[in-house]
This record gives sequence, structure tokens and C-alpha cells, in this order.
Amino acid sequence: MTSNGQGMTTGDNGLRPQPVFGGAPRMRRRRDSFWAVIPAGGSGTRLWPLSRAQRPKFLLPLLGNRSLLQQTADRLSPLADPTRTMVVCGPAHAASVARQLPSVPEGQLIVEPAPRGSLPAIALATALIARLDPEAIVGAFAADHDVADPATLLMAVQTASLAAKDGRLVTIGIEPTRPETGYGYIERTSEVVAHTDRAADLPSPSVAYAAAQFHEKPDLERATAYVASGRYLWNASMFIFTAGTLMTSLEVYQPDLFAAVGRIADAWNTPDREPVMAEVWSTLHPMNIDEGIMELAAADGKVAVVPADFGWSDVGDWHGLGELIEHDGLGNSVRGDFIQLETRDSVVWSETGRIVALIGLNNVVVVDTEDALLVIDRSRAQDVRRVVDELKAQARHELS
Amino acid sequence: MTSNGQGMTTGDNGLRPQPVFGGAPRMRRRRDSFWAVIPAGGSGTRLWPLSRAQRPKFLLPLLGNRSLLQQTADRLSPLADPTRTMVVCGPAHAASVARQLPSVPEGQLIVEPAPRGSLPAIALATALIARLDPEAIVGAFAADHDVADPATLLMAVQTASLAAKDGRLVTIGIEPTRPETGYGYIERTSEVVAHTDRAADLPSPSVAYAAAQFHEKPDLERATAYVASGRYLWNASMFIFTAGTLMTSLEVYQPDLFAAVGRIADAWNTPDREPVMAEVWSTLHPMNIDEGIMELAAADGKVAVVPADFGWSDVGDWHGLGELIEHDGLGNSVRGDFIQLETRDSVVWSETGRIVALIGLNNVVVVDTEDALLVIDRSRAQDVRRVVDELKAQARHELS
Repeated sequence: MTSNGQGMTTGDNGLRPQPVFGGAPRMRRRRDSFWAVIPAGGSGTRLWPLSRAQRPKFLLPLLGNRSLLQQTADRLSPLADPTRTMVVCGPAHAASVARQLPSVPEGQLIVEPAPRGSLPAIALATALIARLDPEAIVGAFAADHDVADPATLLMAVQTASLAAKDGRLVTIGIEPTRPETGYGYIERTSEVVAHTDRAADLPSPSVAYAAAQFHEKPDLERATAYVASGRYLWNASMFIFTAGTLMTSLEVYQPDLFAAVGRIADAWNTPDREPVMAEVWSTLHPMNIDEGIMELAAADGKVAVVPADFGWSDVGDWHGLGELIEHDGLGNSVRGDFIQLETRDSVVWSETGRIVALIGLNNVVVVDTEDALLVIDRSRAQDVRRVVDELKAQARHELS
Repeated sequence: MTSNGQGMTTGDNGLRPQPVFGGAPRMRRRRDSFWAVIPAGGSGTRLWPLSRAQRPKFLLPLLGNRSLLQQTADRLSPLADPTRTMVVCGPAHAASVARQLPSVPEGQLIVEPAPRGSLPAIALATALIARLDPEAIVGAFAADHDVADPATLLMAVQTASLAAKDGRLVTIGIEPTRPETGYGYIERTSEVVAHTDRAADLPSPSVAYAAAQFHEKPDLERATAYVASGRYLWNASMFIFTAGTLMTSLEVYQPDLFAAVGRIADAWNTPDREPVMAEVWSTLHPMNIDEGIMELAAADGKVAVVPADFGWSDVGDWHGLGELIEHDGLGNSVRGDFIQLETRDSVVWSETGRIVALIGLNNVVVVDTEDALLVIDRSRAQDVRRVVDELKAQARHELS
């Protein structure tokens, strides 16, 4: 595992990138301070019935003994130990988050009164970090994704940190392995804006490129063209910047939000924290960091992207989760007490201790929980959210 | 509903059949005594996980609020009230049978120490009836079948009783509606051996024909030819004879069993009942009435068959049970709390109160019980028994 400081200098090979805007001084002598910010929102409706509004995906131990949130904090811990980790979550999940991450100081568990998308959450956390150290490097990572190769992720973050210290907003882009239509894409240029000392040996993830544009989820034809081009990367919601750069960017692109998180940060260590938070938060418009900052800044040439491949998945639905679970010889991904006859390429997840018997099925998903049972054709994994919508419409809140 | 005595005389139209062997005198003045014998054996492994060795199919309320056993007794009650009903079952089910049929006298609940097939069970019950009244008409009916139109069944039994009083062993044959390969068939001749007064109006089920032969479950080609012939009927395990006729037949075709049930019947109302039953029963060879008596007697021209159509089903597997449950507009047969998207022609049976959600599936069966969950392609309904076999092989007896 690489240490925090390693690779944080720019090689002197003529490719030395220039700060773009609002950059902090480069190559400070002191050890750089890295903070992890984990916005823990969303319930993961496509993983119903395992995930629920009250039991969201990030709190679930879907891949191992620790929850996706815990695994997220674990894999970032070589860069940011719990004292430099911030989690932003909703009131309903604050207690679970606090218990799952007992080493994170209470003051760094930010409870947003209502969900407002990722940008207000990241902006407030970063505003609080900026009061401590505007030159701190902040990495924001979704709480409910999976990374098979954390060491490579850390290398990519180091490369991204280099570009961030030059004043850029940096994202890590996943080198696509298939024409996925469920993800957004980031288009990169050929302009190298930063690279680590190891760039010659390891072109990826040791190079940061200027980003050209963010693209919404494409159709299959477009996704196929993206993958063929070699210049499009999956948007994995991983963002690295200095605290000061994000604040400056907010001031430019989202001045109302900039003022709002400033007001909250002013009140944070006072008795007014709660009323100010409640009052200000209710006025915010929901907005994700992609649309609210990154896309606008990319158009202004202020965004860099580090291509990398570390076995990333958004663990988005049962099909995808099945891919992440070890298969038996017939392609079945199973958690639970299972017996099958002539059944292939299926996903079985049982939480009840019951035996699950399948006969003569291909590509189905069976999810067995205490109060709900889901059986679907695996190709329909995206439609699970429609069941949750229907249950909400029926006011069956305990199930949705 | 017709009364017991109605139609029990033979019309004087030249077709008056002759007694074949061991017949009781015809046209007795007194009201004929009809006894129902219900061998309640088999666990119905193809209906796992609902049916279990300890919770066999006949004890389950699969079609309505009453169990298949209760429905069997109910539909025969116009002919045989509980005081003339005998049930033969295993020790594990005696208490349940006694509670499900509280009006059947205790002495008529015969507990066989071990399963020996249908013939020993029917033979013993009939031997006990013969001691009371050798001219009594006995009808043996499986405990776990369904009849949609009980009135027509009763008419068929009346016709069969006529033929039985002439000393025949009579079966009711179901007019086939499809080339079913899961049933045995009975081939009839054109020789009318009995008919009721209504024969001119109602050719079926008012006519009994001499039976030619019993046939095992055929392959599809043969089943198709059977149905096309118009002379093959499904064997529904319904047998009607006088007590004396069966005893005589036993003496001819199965003399050891004849002696054995005679020994037990001699001891029945004595303190020796239990030891004699235990000793004698252990010596019996398993044998069904079809092979042990009916096929042999048919070869000797002593069997009659009454063709009838009363919506009979052996409720043999989940596919068949699904056919008997009302469908929604998409062909889904559902018991339980169900939500679906684009799902058709499927069977959902939930006993747990959980919600069951299906997406994008056709022709699947989902059976949800407290300790086991079954999901199969509907075309594989016959293979459910293989799961039970596997569980037995794994010594998971609580599940099998």
C-alpha cells in the first residue's frame, strides 16, 4: 500500500501542468492533508427487497462482512484515516452510520435534514474542511460502490491529487469494459495535465488528462461508439479537488449554494448550528455535483480526469451484484442455502435461512427476505425500482 | 343431489347384464348400503415444499378452506355419511385425520402400521365392512384428488353400483381431454353391462361397459392414439364393488392377502387387534389395487368401467394445481400477496404473508413456505420430486 505522500510531486519532464484557476501553491513542504468525504444518500431501490428506504444499500454488507459504506471508508483509510473522514447522511441513517464507523468523530458525521443531491452535501463538508485547511485535498466518493483493486484506486487518487493541487477539479474515470448504458461517461482530451513519477511504467492510472465533456447515460449505439473511441470513461462519482478550489468554483457556478454553506459553516461550532442548518437547508435546490459544478467547469477547461481500471462497480442492481459474487460452475451466484436442478446463470440471495430450490431456470434472480420475495428475469433488473414505485403508490411504506 | 337409492335398478330394455362371478342377489328390496373407503396415503412429493412427509397433500387445504381429504369425504357424503366412511392412513397422520373428519367413528379410522400400497388398505377396510354386510357396496376413492362436478361423480357411482351388484369390480374412467402421459388408462369394450334408467338421455355417466385392459402411463404418441380412439379412459383410482365381490376376488387373485386381512378382521373387535395387525401387516407385500386385482380381473372379463367427465384432477403437481386455481387476466394463478410486472401464466403460492413480486417471467412456479422456497420453470413440475429425493439423500428430514 502506498503512503499518503508518495507520488505527490510532479515529474520535471516538460509536461509540468499549469494551475488553471484558484490553485493553491504547489509542492508545499509539509505533508499534504487528504480528507475523504462520503455522501451517503440514496436507498438503492433497484436492490429491493434487500434495500429499503430505512435500510439503504450503503448500510448493507452486500459483498463481505462489512457494509458498502464501511468498505468505502476502509479502502480510503491509507489516504484518510477516520479523523479525516466526513460522512453526510440523512436523519434516518445517522445512528447506523455512527455505529458502523465508530472511529469517525461525531463532528464529522453531518446529518442533512433532507436530501438535496450530492452537491450540497459535498459542498458543506468541503466548506467545513476549508475552514481548517483550504489547501487540504478533498476526495468525494459514493458510499455504495465496489472496488475490486483498492491499491490501483489509491494510485489514481494520488495522480488526481497532483492535478488537484494545480487548481483543477479532478475526476477518476473508469476505463469501460463494455458498452454500458447505465452509466454516465466522461470524454477526455489528449492533453496531459499531470502525471506521477511512474508515468513511463504505468500509463494508467498515473496520468491526468484535461476533460472535454460529461455525457449522460447513452443509448447502446452511442455507448458502443464511446467504448470504441478509447477516450470515453465511466463516471464513477469520484471527485478530487482542494477545498479552496471547490469553494472558488462554487462561488463562480453556484453562488447561492456557496453563500448557504458559508452560513452553515459559520454557525457550525456554535449553539446555532442546528437552527441555521435547518433553515438554510430547506432553501436549497437539489443538485448533483456533476451537473452543478463538474459539467460547467469542464466547459471552462478546468476539469481533469484520471483514467483507471480497478474493478469498479456501482453495485446498481441484482444483475450487477450477481456479477460481483463468486459463481458456481453453472454461473449461479448464490448467498444462502441452495439446491438446484438444471439451473444456470442465476442469482440467489436468501436472508431467511430457508432452503431455496430452483429447477430448470436460466438467468433469473431470486431475492428472499423476511417480508418480501422477488423473482425476476435477470434482464429486467433495472425494473425492480418500478415495484418499489408501485409499493409507494399503494402506501405500503414498510415494504418500500 | 340424487339420493342413495335412486337409479339403483336396471332398466328392463334387453341390455340387462348378467352376474359374472360371486354376485350378490340383485334388486333387493332394502335400501342398499354404500360405504366409502378412503385410502389416505402418499405424501405428494411433487407438491413440495407445501407437502411434506409429515404434512401430506391430502391433509392440505389446496382448493378452498377444506383439505383434499375433507373435500373427498364431503363429496361422497350424499352416498355415505361419516358413519359409513372408512379412512386408512399411517400413524403419523392419524391424529390429523381424526380431527379433520370428527364425525367418522374412531373404529373406522384404520391406522396401518406401515404403508403397503392401496390394496392391503382397501382390502382390510372391505373385510371389516363384509363382516357387517357382505352385500354392502364399497366405493374406494383416493384422498387427494379434485372433482369439479360432484353431482356427476355421484351419478357415475350410481351406475357403477348397478354393475357392482352384478358381481363386477367396477371402476370409473375419466373421459380424457388431452393426451396426458402422467395417468394410467383403462380400455373399454363396447359391451354394455349396466345402465341407469336415464341412459337414453344421458349416455355418460349412465352406462357401464365391460373393461378390456388397464394400461400404464403411455408415451405421448400412444396417449394421443388413446385419446383419438374414444375407448380409453383415465384411471382415476375410483373402484366400486360389493364387499363380497372384493373378498371373493382377493381369495382368487391374492390368497395370502385374503388370509391376512381375514386374520386381522377376526381380531378387530378383540384385545388382540393391535398385536395381530402389527404382526400380519409386517408380512404384507406392497401392492396397489390396480395391479393386484383390477388388471387380473379385467383379463378374466370381470371388470366394468363407467365413463364420466366431472372435472377430475389428481392435483398431482404445481402445474396441475395452477390449472385448478382461478387465473388473473394474464393467466397467473395466485394465492398470496402478489405484485407483478409483465408476468404471465405463472403459479404463485405463498403461505408466509410476505409480498411476492415477479418481473418479466412466463410459466414459472413460485412456492413460498416458512422454511423452503421453490422456483421452477412450470414445464419442470414433475421434477420437484427430485428435489425431495435430494433432500432425503442429504438426511434433511425436516424439509422432506
